[in-house]
Amino acid sequence: MSARRYILKLSCPDRVGIVAAVSAFLASHQGWIVEAQHHSDPDTDTFFMRHEVLASSLPFDLAGLRERFLPIAEEYGMDWSVSDSEVRKRVVILASRQAHCLDDLLYRWRSGELPFDLRAVISNHDTSRSFVEWHGIPHRVLPIAPDDRDAGFRAVDAAIEAAAAEVIVLARYMQVLPSWLCRKYPGRILNIHHSFLPSFIGAKPYHQAHERGVKYVGATCHYVTEQLDDGPIIEQDAIRTNHADTVGELIRMGREVEKAVLARGLRYHLEDRVLLHGRRTVVFG
Amino acid sequence: MSARRYILKLSCPDRVGIVAAVSAFLASHQGWIVEAQHHSDPDTDTFFMRHEVLASSLPFDLAGLRERFLPIAEEYGMDWSVSDSEVRKRVVILASRQAHCLDDLLYRWRSGELPFDLRAVISNHDTSRSFVEWHGIPHRVLPIAPDDRDAGFRAVDAAIEAAAAEVIVLARYMQVLPSWLCRKYPGRILNIHHSFLPSFIGAKPYHQAHERGVKYVGATCHYVTEQLDDGPIIEQDAIRTNHADTVGELIRMGREVEKAVLARGLRYHLEDRVLLHGRRTVVFG
Amino acid sequence: MSARRYILKLSCPDRVGIVAAVSAFLASHQGWIVEAQHHSDPDTDTFFMRHEVLASSLPFDLAGLRERFLPIAEEYGMDWSVSDSEVRKRVVILASRQAHCLDDLLYRWRSGELPFDLRAVISNHDTSRSFVEWHGIPHRVLPIAPDDRDAGFRAVDAAIEAAAAEVIVLARYMQVLPSWLCRKYPGRILNIHHSFLPSFIGAKPYHQAHERGVKYVGATCHYVTEQLDDGPIIEQDAIRTNHADTVGELIRMGREVEKAVLARGLRYHLEDRVLLHGRRTVVFG
Amino acid sequence: MSARRYILKLSCPDRVGIVAAVSAFLASHQGWIVEAQHHSDPDTDTFFMRHEVLASSLPFDLAGLRERFLPIAEEYGMDWSVSDSEVRKRVVILASRQAHCLDDLLYRWRSGELPFDLRAVISNHDTSRSFVEWHGIPHRVLPIAPDDRDAGFRAVDAAIEAAAAEVIVLARYMQVLPSWLCRKYPGRILNIHHSFLPSFIGAKPYHQAHERGVKYVGATCHYVTEQLDDGPIIEQDAIRTNHADTVGELIRMGREVEKAVLARGLRYHLEDRVLLHGRRTVVFG
Repeated sequence: MSARRYILKLSCPDRVGIVAAVSAFLASHQGWIVEAQHHSDPDTDTFFMRHEVLASSLPFDLAGLRERFLPIAEEYGMDWSVSDSEVRKRVVILASRQAHCLDDLLYRWRSGELPFDLRAVISNHDTSRSFVEWHGIPHRVLPIAPDDRDAGFRAVDAAIEAAAAEVIVLARYMQVLPSWLCRKYPGRILNIHHSFLPSFIGAKPYHQAHERGVKYVGATCHYVTEQLDDGPIIEQDAIRTNHADTVGELIRMGREVEKAVLARGLRYHLEDRVLLHGRRTVVFG
Repeated sequence: MSARRYILKLSCPDRVGIVAAVSAFLASHQGWIVEAQHHSDPDTDTFFMRHEVLASSLPFDLAGLRERFLPIAEEYGMDWSVSDSEVRKRVVILASRQAHCLDDLLYRWRSGELPFDLRAVISNHDTSRSFVEWHGIPHRVLPIAPDDRDAGFRAVDAAIEAAAAEVIVLARYMQVLPSWLCRKYPGRILNIHHSFLPSFIGAKPYHQAHERGVKYVGATCHYVTEQLDDGPIIEQDAIRTNHADTVGELIRMGREVEKAVLARGLRYHLEDRVLLHGRRTVVFG
Repeated sequence: MSARRYILKLSCPDRVGIVAAVSAFLASHQGWIVEAQHHSDPDTDTFFMRHEVLASSLPFDLAGLRERFLPIAEEYGMDWSVSDSEVRKRVVILASRQAHCLDDLLYRWRSGELPFDLRAVISNHDTSRSFVEWHGIPHRVLPIAPDDRDAGFRAVDAAIEAAAAEVIVLARYMQVLPSWLCRKYPGRILNIHHSFLPSFIGAKPYHQAHERGVKYVGATCHYVTEQLDDGPIIEQDAIRTNHADTVGELIRMGREVEKAVLARGLRYHLEDRVLLHGRRTVVFG
Repeated sequence: MSARRYILKLSCPDRVGIVAAVSAFLASHQGWIVEAQHHSDPDTDTFFMRHEVLASSLPFDLAGLRERFLPIAEEYGMDWSVSDSEVRKRVVILASRQAHCLDDLLYRWRSGELPFDLRAVISNHDTSRSFVEWHGIPHRVLPIAPDDRDAGFRAVDAAIEAAAAEVIVLARYMQVLPSWLCRKYPGRILNIHHSFLPSFIGAKPYHQAHERGVKYVGATCHYVTEQLDDGPIIEQDAIRTNHADTVGELIRMGREVEKAVLARGLRYHLEDRVLLHGRRTVVFG
């Protein structure tokens, strides 16, 4: 519905003239900036920037943009990328028995609300097969045997590779990924954790929350790293509870937050709005 | 402004007939119930109840109510209390250099927004003296010397006793109370911690939050127990932040949440809306 | 999952002894109260009450409860009902092209998250047919011709009757119901309006909101009455926006609120938590 | 605490090259951009921009910046201003009997939380005099006689002029300003209205909200225009209520929102974060 855009995102050491260099470059080619955001981090003297430029305003395609921008990127020592709003990212969803996040993402996919190229759903259970397949999406059942988890994950990884996935979404997958798999896809695996991190890391966070008597429960979308529930946070939210809410009700209420937070986090990622900054993220929302 | 009410709160082992017994008792004396709340905890089979009864509807005073209710309380093994909405609780506020919570409570006190009998402000600094004294409230400066903290706290406790305080409010007091003081006033010391507990226990929670890259900062009002930042939570809230917020801005934004959460927590306590349930609270808000 | 419960809800003129009468009645039959809520409205001297009682604790069934409670109900002039948590209410959903609320309700129905007996989906378009039918639910296309809307609605009403629907949910139906239809099902038709009522009544509320420059958009679930967007409000919520959000983005963000608010409002209705009070509602949430 | 900054804000017809021109200008003088935000409005093809530049990084002062920027501003047809973060704006507060917003602003002023130059408080009542004067701030009582409101407002305007006020804050002033006064200070009078506009315009909004049975009450900070409660909205927020909340409780709860919303709106205005866009605002928060 929106016009085609090229998205330029970058980070580099902060200094005078970065914005001028980038905007002069774009202006010299008549690039029409639709959206622009900057952030300077004073602690690390790092600069972050994201531009959306109308594709039709530029006299070259994405490869041409990349080629012409390269000298500026090198001059300023940028960590950068360009992408095309009309090229959908290839996504694989990993799910388990609890299907609310999977179902929510399927709704957003089929309605076009979240534009991505859904290549496959991988689950360690068969429970969602018919619903997934109704969408015309392959559903792979790949159990993780407790006594040979590594073999299970090698099969999962093979399925990810077969799907040529750029983004892996853990939609309440309930399995801790092995380190080698986390390292293989840095900044590309998104998880939804069912607590307001760093509260209640690990298993059964709603039980932990009930036990502690907190007045809110929350959810956190983060990139997966080798350390459990510790990766850079993309998005969070929380919902009020009270003493009358049983663990079962916390679980029910929490599902709403989990779905919303994962969908927002994934949107930011798909739209190239997230930049990594050590253990933190810059989200140009 | 509201008519005088007697507040009956109780907890006891759950069984059939508690509500019937209490409400039959009140009805037999023509007691007009203005507000009533119950809670049954299925995990521990404990029952909680709070009633507000119009004082003018009863043919006896608070002492009479207490005396006549005693047999029921004994029959059901109740942990219970009655109070009078027109008798203000005696409060001492402990504060330090950061005055936003203190100032907020002083506003609520002088405007009548929160009805309590403010007996004294105790601080380890002199910075708020003239503002406190303008209100006609005694301001005691009682420093806590690092090399003899116990002596400092004995002086604080003497001031609490001199004020005959029923409630002690730590309004960003910034000092960890010694165990003996926590034990002396169980369920009577309210603290405001500047994080969304159990995240970021201890010192400099906003720095911890910034470092972790969370997308919200929060505050928690809880009863003080011997274990740091671990007492039963009365009230919490949180506010959205983003990557651009420095620690200084988190501190500024957090002040708003701290003030609001402490004021709400204190209101619940003053209105006898909080019942302890192990490490948790029942709040009949 | 929860044990079977009988739900008693009532309203009546307020006076001393109502709670005592009801709770003595229940206690005399060993009725175990799982949840209880009251509300006294001081402006109209009206009393509202809702009880959940464990079915297995009573020596009679729902009919027996109804019969034995009748004398109390008559004595106090109660408007009352009893229901059984295991008898699912018959629901018909009316939808149109915008399918997000329909799809969300279908998810909640198929996952059991919201327990109801979905009898049919009626739409004025064919767009959702295959998705609805995958669920095994009849999908009726009943267009509303602009030049004979009444005929269209007679067909809709016939379909409602054929489904023996107790509850009619307008899931972004986009058609104004005729007065006779509103009058026929008082307190039984739930609508989701895509604004924070009473702001932006009528058509294109997101356009109105954008034009006015508000900083939040919201949604409202209410009972349908003859006057457009004016019926008793069951539930509302809102979400923050800013100057950069186009109408299209308000629509996208608003969908999230609409889904959540309709689902919560419907849950309250299905669980007999909503009591009408003139133009307002009492919601024992 | 923060380093001195110059703030440049502007709007102009959108075209290619604006960002390039402005950032090249700043870079050519070694201007260090601390914060930068843009917005392009696609409906009106208008461009908005705000920059904070480290004052010490530029080789000239504010007047020098203004002089050198003028040719660019003229070339692009900009509506623009520059300001200095260390020059506090002169503010007059208009208040009435309800003092919660006044008291809150006084707290923020005395604590330095909101940096402004408070010149006077004008009230139509004497109730806040001693508290205002304790702050060393002049308190003027200027009643508005119902039979000669214009004379009253001429006195108010004389006091505003005597204070050389740049910003006039209506802190629950409860008087409708005459048209001539609204016209005299366009974009300089901030009001807090105690409803979630456009709901409940005019008098007694909490009564209106209670009558309508809404599930939230809110507050709106807006610029005052000749049409009542219709000026451009700067900030809004809302708080959940329920059926049990009386009008008195809505008023109490609403005060919290009013204070917070007015303080945030005023902060945005003082920091030159608000740009007018017809009946709407762009807020670079």
